[in-house]
Amino acid sequence: MAHHSSSARFITLDTYDIRFPTSRSLDGSDAMNPDPDYSAAYLVLRTDAGEALEGHGFTFTIGRGNDVQVAAINALREHVLGRSVDEVCADPASVSRTLIGDSQLRWLGPEKGVMHMAIGAVINAVWDLAAKREGKPLWQLLADADPEWLASQVDYRYLTDALTFSDAVDLLRRGKEGAGERAAQLRERGYPAYTTSPGWLGYSDEKLTRLAKQAIADGFTQIKLKVGADLADDVRRMRAAREAVGPDVRIAIDANQRWDVSQAVAWIQELKRFDPYWIEEPTSPDDILGHSVIRQSVAPVKVATGEHVQNRIVFKQLIQAHALDIVQIDSARVGGVNENLAILLLAAKHDLPVCPHAGGVGLCELVQHLSMFDYVALSGTTRDRVIEYVDHLHEHFLAPVRIVNGHYDAPSAPGFSAQMHPSSISEFTYPGGAFWSADAVSAAVAAPV
Amino acid sequence: MAHHSSSARFITLDTYDIRFPTSRSLDGSDAMNPDPDYSAAYLVLRTDAGEALEGHGFTFTIGRGNDVQVAAINALREHVLGRSVDEVCADPASVSRTLIGDSQLRWLGPEKGVMHMAIGAVINAVWDLAAKREGKPLWQLLADADPEWLASQVDYRYLTDALTFSDAVDLLRRGKEGAGERAAQLRERGYPAYTTSPGWLGYSDEKLTRLAKQAIADGFTQIKLKVGADLADDVRRMRAAREAVGPDVRIAIDANQRWDVSQAVAWIQELKRFDPYWIEEPTSPDDILGHSVIRQSVAPVKVATGEHVQNRIVFKQLIQAHALDIVQIDSARVGGVNENLAILLLAAKHDLPVCPHAGGVGLCELVQHLSMFDYVALSGTTRDRVIEYVDHLHEHFLAPVRIVNGHYDAPSAPGFSAQMHPSSISEFTYPGGAFWSADAVSAAVAAPV
Repeated sequence: MAHHSSSARFITLDTYDIRFPTSRSLDGSDAMNPDPDYSAAYLVLRTDAGEALEGHGFTFTIGRGNDVQVAAINALREHVLGRSVDEVCADPASVSRTLIGDSQLRWLGPEKGVMHMAIGAVINAVWDLAAKREGKPLWQLLADADPEWLASQVDYRYLTDALTFSDAVDLLRRGKEGAGERAAQLRERGYPAYTTSPGWLGYSDEKLTRLAKQAIADGFTQIKLKVGADLADDVRRMRAAREAVGPDVRIAIDANQRWDVSQAVAWIQELKRFDPYWIEEPTSPDDILGHSVIRQSVAPVKVATGEHVQNRIVFKQLIQAHALDIVQIDSARVGGVNENLAILLLAAKHDLPVCPHAGGVGLCELVQHLSMFDYVALSGTTRDRVIEYVDHLHEHFLAPVRIVNGHYDAPSAPGFSAQMHPSSISEFTYPGGAFWSADAVSAAVAAPV
Repeated sequence: MAHHSSSARFITLDTYDIRFPTSRSLDGSDAMNPDPDYSAAYLVLRTDAGEALEGHGFTFTIGRGNDVQVAAINALREHVLGRSVDEVCADPASVSRTLIGDSQLRWLGPEKGVMHMAIGAVINAVWDLAAKREGKPLWQLLADADPEWLASQVDYRYLTDALTFSDAVDLLRRGKEGAGERAAQLRERGYPAYTTSPGWLGYSDEKLTRLAKQAIADGFTQIKLKVGADLADDVRRMRAAREAVGPDVRIAIDANQRWDVSQAVAWIQELKRFDPYWIEEPTSPDDILGHSVIRQSVAPVKVATGEHVQNRIVFKQLIQAHALDIVQIDSARVGGVNENLAILLLAAKHDLPVCPHAGGVGLCELVQHLSMFDYVALSGTTRDRVIEYVDHLHEHFLAPVRIVNGHYDAPSAPGFSAQMHPSSISEFTYPGGAFWSADAVSAAVAAPV
């Protein structure tokens, strides 16, 4: 897959601690995360070919600890600098193998938490650059790729009891049938979205009702409500939401890991009369067997999880244990595009719909590419599939997502849509950027002497 | 449990990036970790009561990334400074709740990887201080504690389908019966150990044979061999080890996560003729269902895992899925003493022996306290229980472990045995300490101009 052959090499990997003060408006508040400051541990891979050839990537955090995430990305720098851009773009998995295979860094996971999210940020920057270099949006680069090559981008370690290279090639070959027509449909109609904007815990019932009605007017066919802090509140809010949207709109509910297993079952039973479509993160993302028990107990309410699922190995088991109905990939939690390919393949092999987690900052921008590839050249359908949409912070990106009639418009700009405006980066860099410096000054002025 | 009432408060939390150049001797080499530099992300909690009241704690890493771990500990500082020492020592779980409950930092896990190990280091430092303040070694402080109080130190979130507060109280009350006699026996005979020193992958067969014979002469009744890199080598090394120790000594084997599920089963079948006692970490520590399949397939070879198990929730499932025979706690991987209490209680409730992972730097010093408490006041037995022992780097500690006739001598010094000599800290601080500064100078001199 070498194109535009050149001698360019990676010469810098610059990192940025970028934080937005979202906690001040209760946007994004849920039962576990009352006051998130949406943040990005952001990096730019630069080459000696100049600005025309940069890779941007990031992982998403909710404030404190974004500096730890930046330190983890910095720890990966030496593995990337000096590498040939041609070779890396011809085989991004080679970078993935090097980063995941660093035996000393592996001790800090393995393949989970801070270190793994840092790896994901770097891998995603590599794919951003690879797609820009091809002059294609990432979804298209993936959809156009040769099945054998794409299958070679997946790490099958710890997966072979559920997915092999040969399975992947078969699935990707099958996905090629009709891909051209689906790409044309995608460009015309976009990819279905659902919105979480009405349902944050910190919002009043009036705001919930107003935003839910607005969502339907805007063309969404599914909304989501945060639940799990107080049962009486949830009953009241769920009733208000169902009244606002009527019986035909799907309402997902999301407990953000708030419950133990038996508590989850009891709580969901109380909300069942309002016909919730799925329950998301009913308990710990680590509790595969717990999800399995919950799913058996609350059917036909579907179980969805994934935004905090640490890697492909846990997704594999959630599928093996029949513990979930809906696979919620996240673009910035696992080891980047390569590991998300593994998860998309696992889902496709087991006929499970993928409905990505998004929101935060930049997660919509990234993950749309993965779902669009899945539609065009893997699962081949958007049936029961929707990408989460939250209307926050898109203005900071060069190629922000565009929602038209409840659908994500297919991106046409080359790359992974990961790049932020330089002015946004400099204003919201923590703690030295213009916003936070001014904020520190106001706080100092306001404080009693 | 408030004693020596005072108004002391925590005033500093100082961190140190300490690295030992162990990779130069191939000590500690295994199939996944060919060249570890044993390291500690180390902290000292200081109070306004001066040197008499300090808590020392650390997490263990194998080199690169120790700086990321230090950054993660630094991110916790604000949650500890200013707290009352009396209140913290009366309820260390209050610190655990604050650290694990920081919703912004929780995003980086939750309860796994870099952030969780950092939390464990701080929690362990709190217990070190609490035990010093009582004038007791930690094992004794735990064994003497009131059952209700000790049960209150556990976080039951996500555990209640397997372990409740009431279960814990029952188990700890039962553990009190005969505890006095067992404490006396422990002081007299120590706690059984096994040794991994003969079995590192980097050692020659001659060295393996010599060290295995030495281990038996030294009173150990179990040794461990690293396996998983090359089957023919493993067969040869396992034969040499069995010949060296005879039929009655247990030989554990440890694959350090090297295999996929079916590969693990096939490989272990080849080694079965040498009667391995347990197979440790046959595959990913995240693969609960995989461990379950392996265990069913290789019996009567026992399955052991835990040194990389991220938290109590994964241990819970390993037990629920009948996926392991031996619970290998690690003192510095999970959220400190409080979470290890949860794991010890889960094991005790399900009659599973706990055989801790140790070695590295300081892991023997810490974990002996947990096993000794388990013997004296929880499981009440050392049957089929052994603590790993590796003879590395103990000289850096004020109260190093002492092995007598294959047993860990019960520590008598107050605290958690976590404290390093100031001279060791300053010499091996990375990169500025005397050892690493001199090393950098030699490297610069040796490098071609």
